[in-house]
Amino acid sequence: MCLLMKVLVAEKCGFCPGVRNAISLAEQTLAQEKDSFVYSLGSIIHNNDEVSRLAKLGLKTVNDVDEIESGTVLIRSHGVAPEQMSKLEAKGLKIVDATCVLVKKVQRIARQLQSEGYKVVVIGDENHPEVQAVVGCAEDVVVISDRSDIDRLPTDGKLGIVCQTTQSPEQFGKMLGAIGQGSFSELKVINTLCKEAINRQKSAIGLCKQVDIMIVLGGLESANTRTLAELCKKHNRSTFHLQNWNDLDKSVLCGKNTAGVTAGASTPEWIIKEFVDNLEAFSGVGQ
Amino acid sequence: MCLLMKVLVAEKCGFCPGVRNAISLAEQTLAQEKDSFVYSLGSIIHNNDEVSRLAKLGLKTVNDVDEIESGTVLIRSHGVAPEQMSKLEAKGLKIVDATCVLVKKVQRIARQLQSEGYKVVVIGDENHPEVQAVVGCAEDVVVISDRSDIDRLPTDGKLGIVCQTTQSPEQFGKMLGAIGQGSFSELKVINTLCKEAINRQKSAIGLCKQVDIMIVLGGLESANTRTLAELCKKHNRSTFHLQNWNDLDKSVLCGKNTAGVTAGASTPEWIIKEFVDNLEAFSGVGQ
Repeated sequence: MCLLMKVLVAEKCGFCPGVRNAISLAEQTLAQEKDSFVYSLGSIIHNNDEVSRLAKLGLKTVNDVDEIESGTVLIRSHGVAPEQMSKLEAKGLKIVDATCVLVKKVQRIARQLQSEGYKVVVIGDENHPEVQAVVGCAEDVVVISDRSDIDRLPTDGKLGIVCQTTQSPEQFGKMLGAIGQGSFSELKVINTLCKEAINRQKSAIGLCKQVDIMIVLGGLESANTRTLAELCKKHNRSTFHLQNWNDLDKSVLCGKNTAGVTAGASTPEWIIKEFVDNLEAFSGVGQ
Repeated sequence: MCLLMKVLVAEKCGFCPGVRNAISLAEQTLAQEKDSFVYSLGSIIHNNDEVSRLAKLGLKTVNDVDEIESGTVLIRSHGVAPEQMSKLEAKGLKIVDATCVLVKKVQRIARQLQSEGYKVVVIGDENHPEVQAVVGCAEDVVVISDRSDIDRLPTDGKLGIVCQTTQSPEQFGKMLGAIGQGSFSELKVINTLCKEAINRQKSAIGLCKQVDIMIVLGGLESANTRTLAELCKKHNRSTFHLQNWNDLDKSVLCGKNTAGVTAGASTPEWIIKEFVDNLEAFSGVGQ
């Protein structure tokens, strides 16, 4: 048997207020709307375990507005583009908006930057729903995620720049540095990074330095968890991004004295507790 | 004797319109004010040879307003802080303003950014007169030139950023990248880099790749020439920053087949011509 000496959990990890609010709204809505359908347009959060738990309570996840005919629809924490929202309203559906307040703010900022004459640029993943919703808030938004994307920016342009809320300050800075070497005339950059996500990153990086192995718990599609895992990997090469206890290949624990555990902002407390309890039991901690 | 095959001169080099205007104004003023003193507050441009030439025509260079009692004062291309200008006006001096139009624009932008509620940040050399003049245009301006200076920026601040006109896009981008990793709330960045300087940089970098030795002509205190020399050094290790032909240690030419020559925006045509003529004669080109 492989023995671990200690399991340390990051001081800041797990649900952020935005995700907590979305889950709470989902639970309330499911309780109130027992006699009609309750939909989530896309996974309410990027965590399969939590989505499965809510599905058992009645939440139906669909990927397209056309799949909803009647009932209530939850707008997930990542938000939705205005065009989609109009479609939902046109269908006469009851809408429960669980968009994270910070994501709503990014959408407002994108509109504002456009009205001030800036070409809106989003630093982020163009396939992520949060980014897609922001893109829908202004015209011809350019999404960039790598230095090679800089060529797609207009020459001598006035650029209004926001960042996907769950990116790291390192990535934000790296991209601004690349833009700054280009031929812009003016940049207006609003720091739209989520402080909750940054605090989780700082807490995780601190923990990385104290442990022999680092576990990052969270959905594989969760942007903030992926950012967390990438950062942890830079500070501790023995970093593993897992969805839950079942994902753990126990052999990686061999020879490790201390394990660190952190979790993304969309990872529920019960997943973290289950993981830590199992890891401690497996390692013989407290026995 | 060391033989050079070819001497190539950068397509874009030497006087920029701002410097040409300053020299032309100095010459006109000296011609018009033959019967009174004509002063330059600080070297009219950062080129000792040109300053010596104008001194022979009567231009007196002083470093402090207190050294001027009467007559005409030329404001050099780097500009002057409003406080200094007020002092000159209070003395009842005739003022001939040869501040580069782009430098004047940076001063206006600094004032404007402050009036919009931004903390003004200048990326540049705090000891350079252009930067000192811009610093005088707003309150508590922060000048930064290195990543280590970032700690001096306010946390969560709204920063209004300009750049010393003669820095390189690489340095501008590097510093914006460093700021972007920090904890700002908003950045408004105006691209105040001089296109003339950038064109000289591009032209010099292109030439660097074609030659065995690269000569950058210009004042040792000239910011744009120093930037040019630093960039050239990155692209051709045999780069020498010289003031004129007399500075050249001829032994560095040995074994070189092609020499490239460029010059900063404050390097007069006659210095470049003298250098190229001497180099060609020394190398036996055309003989």
